[in-house]
Amino acid sequence: MKTLIRNGFLVTADANDTCGDGCVLVEGGTITYAGPESLAPQVSADRVIDAQGGVVAPGFIDTHTHVPMTMMRGYADDLALMDWLQNHIWPAEARLTEEAVYWGSMLAMCEFAAAGVTCFSDMYNFNEAIARAAHDSGLRALIATAVLDIDGGGDDRLKRAAAFFDAVKGYDRIEAAIGPHAEYTVSPEMFEKVRDLAGKLNARIHVHVSETQSEHEECIARHGKTPIGLLESLGVLELPVMAAHCVWVSDDDMDIMARHHVSVMTCPGSNLKLGSGIPRVSRMLEKGINVSCATDGAASNNNLSMMEEMTLTGLLQKGLNQDPSLIPAKTALRIATINGAEALGMSSMTGSLEAGKKADIVVLGTDGVRWCPRTNLLNHLVYSGSDADVKLTMVGGDIIYEDGHITFGDIEEIKEKASQYAAELFA
Amino acid sequence: MKTLIRNGFLVTADANDTCGDGCVLVEGGTITYAGPESLAPQVSADRVIDAQGGVVAPGFIDTHTHVPMTMMRGYADDLALMDWLQNHIWPAEARLTEEAVYWGSMLAMCEFAAAGVTCFSDMYNFNEAIARAAHDSGLRALIATAVLDIDGGGDDRLKRAAAFFDAVKGYDRIEAAIGPHAEYTVSPEMFEKVRDLAGKLNARIHVHVSETQSEHEECIARHGKTPIGLLESLGVLELPVMAAHCVWVSDDDMDIMARHHVSVMTCPGSNLKLGSGIPRVSRMLEKGINVSCATDGAASNNNLSMMEEMTLTGLLQKGLNQDPSLIPAKTALRIATINGAEALGMSSMTGSLEAGKKADIVVLGTDGVRWCPRTNLLNHLVYSGSDADVKLTMVGGDIIYEDGHITFGDIEEIKEKASQYAAELFA
Repeated sequence: MKTLIRNGFLVTADANDTCGDGCVLVEGGTITYAGPESLAPQVSADRVIDAQGGVVAPGFIDTHTHVPMTMMRGYADDLALMDWLQNHIWPAEARLTEEAVYWGSMLAMCEFAAAGVTCFSDMYNFNEAIARAAHDSGLRALIATAVLDIDGGGDDRLKRAAAFFDAVKGYDRIEAAIGPHAEYTVSPEMFEKVRDLAGKLNARIHVHVSETQSEHEECIARHGKTPIGLLESLGVLELPVMAAHCVWVSDDDMDIMARHHVSVMTCPGSNLKLGSGIPRVSRMLEKGINVSCATDGAASNNNLSMMEEMTLTGLLQKGLNQDPSLIPAKTALRIATINGAEALGMSSMTGSLEAGKKADIVVLGTDGVRWCPRTNLLNHLVYSGSDADVKLTMVGGDIIYEDGHITFGDIEEIKEKASQYAAELFA
Repeated sequence: MKTLIRNGFLVTADANDTCGDGCVLVEGGTITYAGPESLAPQVSADRVIDAQGGVVAPGFIDTHTHVPMTMMRGYADDLALMDWLQNHIWPAEARLTEEAVYWGSMLAMCEFAAAGVTCFSDMYNFNEAIARAAHDSGLRALIATAVLDIDGGGDDRLKRAAAFFDAVKGYDRIEAAIGPHAEYTVSPEMFEKVRDLAGKLNARIHVHVSETQSEHEECIARHGKTPIGLLESLGVLELPVMAAHCVWVSDDDMDIMARHHVSVMTCPGSNLKLGSGIPRVSRMLEKGINVSCATDGAASNNNLSMMEEMTLTGLLQKGLNQDPSLIPAKTALRIATINGAEALGMSSMTGSLEAGKKADIVVLGTDGVRWCPRTNLLNHLVYSGSDADVKLTMVGGDIIYEDGHITFGDIEEIKEKASQYAAELFA
């Protein structure tokens, strides 16, 4: 199967940040050419997609989310964190079932597809159901089993985390990771067990780090070390680590993270909405840390728009540091695409439009008023466009969304099922 | 002409912040009923609009913008403020013509209509052209003539500002204001002349205040007073004043503003993008100041989405103050609607769904994935929805946008003309 996406404005997120008119050739799910039409190989495509002058970009990569939480969207807003968690989110989560998680995840898959998100990284429970939803929709995913032992159930969870690596073996686009939840829910001993398991499985570790000021300071009080310092001392950072949030990491923490190639998943919308603070992303970039961006769960966002997070990631740094030159549009795009792939250990596979990578692609229409005049389509993509401009989303050469419709299921059925299961959570 | 909008979820922004299923009856451009269908007067409507369970809300009010700047969208992003202004924006503006401003403004009117914005407050030049565009599209507007005398042209501009009050008399929905640009471009003597003219004309004064830290501090160095302090000492605050930005106003400034009923137009997106900083909106609200929100011009935003500004206004305060309970959804909606009407001196006319007010209404579809599950439609409106959900925009009972189409012109012609004139600015 050969697919040609022609008549586009390519935003490649490759090493040169190439932007310009061009086409993308996809053969057997893999990009074989991305560049000017005049230089494209002459092949007869089985399928030609006319981008109509619109933007063709790498699909967005959401590096930290909890997809079943779409069911809790709008359920508990404007509340203090502990009230939100203890009186609303946790009681609802205690009622979750495998089937609820599947349909909540399917709802998220619909939202991702319509928003040009081709790959996500999750941390939650009922991971088999999440993997099934990702597989059924065609998205690429790295799914971490949440491990915490604050309630004594750590070893069981660790076993489940290990078993999940076997469970995803049948799925082409899905990989497993281990998700020790956070310093305040995981004992040092359990972190060491996670480290050993991850080493054995050659796995990535996905962990919440310094999301709130109190969490950061209480860790120092408990251990005489910051969360990052603790993870380093426990040898966890010898493994590939993905650190979500990092709102309160110190400059020293950042040096440690850079040294150990820890990737950051910044969640600016969620950090604002939960009152966690404003992460110092520009400083992290200065330190050479790989920073990606993410939506977090829909209960604290309240949507899964990576275009909104991409924009917000840059804008916050400009405002916070009073420097409009920080995180220019091309950097924001990289944060939402190739840096995400790097965080997930998938940068040789996805995250940019380059020959040899999987065809994980989003096509955006540029006919809307917000794209006029056509001064600079990359800037428009980052500062003016929106999810509503997404015309087509492709993963591994398969179209999962086109012209307002998902291709992998009945959207009304998915909405109805997700709503039914959601209602049971709040009973 | 009687219009019934039925089967909606009303978000009224009235004194009680009423939310719930209901209908709105419009007679002769005015709302005569907004409430539950069971209590609605029995009239035979000439036109019935089925909201299909979607949200029916007051149209958004953009209280500080420069509509012709849509032509400069994406033209100069990620630049330091003075580079942006001196090397890009001002040279482009020097090439503006009456016709360019008209078509650039028409482009903005299309964007407003599609985004549920029914009323805007502008400060720019070539105001007759802006007024003509607002009139031709049917939007409500308060248009201030920019007055500055840093180049010695102050008295001429003041004359033009006065003449503009006569120019808008033929326009039903358009009012004039006077726009002394800012402390750093307007002399104290000219502020006094503006004050006197505004007093004579019973006019509102629209002014940029403490947008950047340097502007705020240089004013103190020059006058021994903050911009707000200076305006108070010059008697300007005896008039109704609308103050844009206010990123750097002090607590004392806020006390002065509250005492003089100065309204604030906060522009969070523009303030971030230009690196101006993060305004202390929650503190202003605590002080009892009327705060509205606004997009600023599209060259520093880069779109005219009031839904994005509404969301951002609240999120920034939660994050900045580490308190997620600040600016709950209902407050954010008021900031984007009724508070805007109050700022413009139009709160008896627009800004809420109430009998006696003009029918300035937006209807949003809630079928999208981002509105599922239907836990709380007000929260979804503020935290999850987007401009793309706008199905219908009505001003004074006239539909200006419906199902993806503007009703007041040919969108392709407007885009083409605006693009042509934009190209001339950057020649």
